[in-house]
Amino acid sequence: MNVSVVATGHTQFGKDPRGIGDIMIDACNQALETVPMDEIDAIYISNFSSSFANQCHLPSVLASKIKVNKEITRVESACASGGVAFKEAAIAIRSGLYNNVLVLGVEKMTTTPINHSTRIIARAASQEEMDHGATFPSLYALMAQRHFFEYGTTEEHLAKIAVKNHNNALNNSNAQFHKKITIEDVMLSKYVATPLKVYDCSPITDGAAALVLSSKEKSSEFTDKPIHLIGIGHDVRGIELYKRKNLTSIPAVGFAAQKAYQMSGLSSQDIEFAEVHDCFTIAELIQIEDLRLCNKGDGKKLIENGETEIGGRIPINPSGGLKAKGHPIGATGISQVVETVTQLQENSGKNQISNANVGLCCNIGGTGGTAVVSIFSR
Amino acid sequence: MNVSVVATGHTQFGKDPRGIGDIMIDACNQALETVPMDEIDAIYISNFSSSFANQCHLPSVLASKIKVNKEITRVESACASGGVAFKEAAIAIRSGLYNNVLVLGVEKMTTTPINHSTRIIARAASQEEMDHGATFPSLYALMAQRHFFEYGTTEEHLAKIAVKNHNNALNNSNAQFHKKITIEDVMLSKYVATPLKVYDCSPITDGAAALVLSSKEKSSEFTDKPIHLIGIGHDVRGIELYKRKNLTSIPAVGFAAQKAYQMSGLSSQDIEFAEVHDCFTIAELIQIEDLRLCNKGDGKKLIENGETEIGGRIPINPSGGLKAKGHPIGATGISQVVETVTQLQENSGKNQISNANVGLCCNIGGTGGTAVVSIFSR
Repeated sequence: MNVSVVATGHTQFGKDPRGIGDIMIDACNQALETVPMDEIDAIYISNFSSSFANQCHLPSVLASKIKVNKEITRVESACASGGVAFKEAAIAIRSGLYNNVLVLGVEKMTTTPINHSTRIIARAASQEEMDHGATFPSLYALMAQRHFFEYGTTEEHLAKIAVKNHNNALNNSNAQFHKKITIEDVMLSKYVATPLKVYDCSPITDGAAALVLSSKEKSSEFTDKPIHLIGIGHDVRGIELYKRKNLTSIPAVGFAAQKAYQMSGLSSQDIEFAEVHDCFTIAELIQIEDLRLCNKGDGKKLIENGETEIGGRIPINPSGGLKAKGHPIGATGISQVVETVTQLQENSGKNQISNANVGLCCNIGGTGGTAVVSIFSR
Repeated sequence: MNVSVVATGHTQFGKDPRGIGDIMIDACNQALETVPMDEIDAIYISNFSSSFANQCHLPSVLASKIKVNKEITRVESACASGGVAFKEAAIAIRSGLYNNVLVLGVEKMTTTPINHSTRIIARAASQEEMDHGATFPSLYALMAQRHFFEYGTTEEHLAKIAVKNHNNALNNSNAQFHKKITIEDVMLSKYVATPLKVYDCSPITDGAAALVLSSKEKSSEFTDKPIHLIGIGHDVRGIELYKRKNLTSIPAVGFAAQKAYQMSGLSSQDIEFAEVHDCFTIAELIQIEDLRLCNKGDGKKLIENGETEIGGRIPINPSGGLKAKGHPIGATGISQVVETVTQLQENSGKNQISNANVGLCCNIGGTGGTAVVSIFSR
């Protein structure tokens, strides 16, 4: 793509007392410490739903806050909004029309009553599924049930994912949860939709993340450590889970990954760590397999052997993931890139993966109707 | 930009009994009669609010409906969503990554109770303005009051705009209203927010519009009458009307127009007709002036002299505009382009403007926080 990340920003995820505008600005301003606003030609905002903050037209809200006038565009593709906005920004750089583009993801969710939040989020599923009372925990629970049936995966495997992600979040100051949990904690937590329990589910979160993209040629103007986007794949398939041939796989992830690997000239063997979309623990397991980081059905072995932990063969969600870092929907896809860039710049502190040169992000929407996979290198 | 429109589609605007997915598909399929789906590399969807149809993640809904897998992205910028989605599609073509891109605008509004609709639409204004009970009719009414005070514009001038747009819609089979109205009808209609009356306001509408963009070089592969995008400007400013120095002007329109004129190498003198964003009649008047189709304050003279009618010096909204063609918010910016392309292809039937070579579209969001101006030529 010939596009590089040259600056990043990230708010403290969790319950944020500020309004959506001020949360956005916080992440923006951090990124703008590296690239001044007058060098920014266009801005992309990822935001999932105007029903949370009761505000759409965020481009104009941002213009008010930053007091400058830019070409600003909001992009939405359910929980994959961030990945898609990031892709749009990369295309904008590649078009040659813009030198530097700011990309921003934001969601303000905690002020919405939880029952209403569930209804808002359910809009990312099909109307038929909603009409039958399905919610996202129940849809992902079906995927888990079938994965258990076909491959012998167990609730304990999923619990190990939650424990790992909580462990990783302990050292991520921006994470929502700084709470060590045990397998027993997960196993004893209440069922939300069998077999998924409270600790298998990502939380409701406020937060924003931002980054600046430049062309690879000019990327060293702003930083000694530009991180290069070497492959990106975007795939969109049917919204209904019930029409999928196989519940144990998210086809859009496989196809998006294939495009990203092809563009990068790399294979799944070359990936050294990944931030994946663990809205539920089962989603992390399925993505590990669909990204071909192991064979289908073998995700459980990686988990049993600790291979996905920091220090393992292929660390997954070293940031803490959606599960423990938090999941402000529109911010998530951008946060994944910020965390990956931070790792590749060797700025991840106690969570630093040694000698990592290539990292991958996988951001999905709904039950995986949309997927964006991006690959970065130093 | 080196980008051309090669195919179009448009539903019958009004109360459409179909669901949002089927409305989208209707417009898509019309455009796909000219460019087959397997030639389409990416799709952009313009949609304003998931709160109307209770559905977001429209890219995945579309993938289900068309049963093919593409890179599909939703773009939102209030009522300027269509203009911004169109710009994104043009950038995508220019990046060289895609040969043909489908752009689609859609909104399904009529099934939402009207009080709730007003609340959903108000999210495109600032939180402070909403908190004080402002709605869009009241905000545009303030602009009208001030324009009357400064320039001597009257309610009759605005009424003439409504009458003209209803007249034009009579010959547009896709228009919501096919109803001739008189100045007296407008003047006797009820006040919504003084001085704006029912007939000064655009309606609640269901509808979709679609088009296919290709590079200029390849545009003649699909049609004998490709229409070329020769200039486009996108400008975003503060969301609050109350912070604007001057209520009689929409600064984003002026700046977007300036960019579009500059890119096209043309001036406002070269524009032969325009589709502008007449969500309220006063908005049409203000845009005529801010696009520099006349001097500031002289909009009323164009109207008095019939210069904005079909057959006049500079026909405005030959399609019937938002006022009479209808305003399905996410579809509007795409519909404007479709109507302009149809004129330049000389396919506008009884509304055909003779020998028109250059047309302009102006799509705005909120009280004009966002504006997109695009210029097309044969």
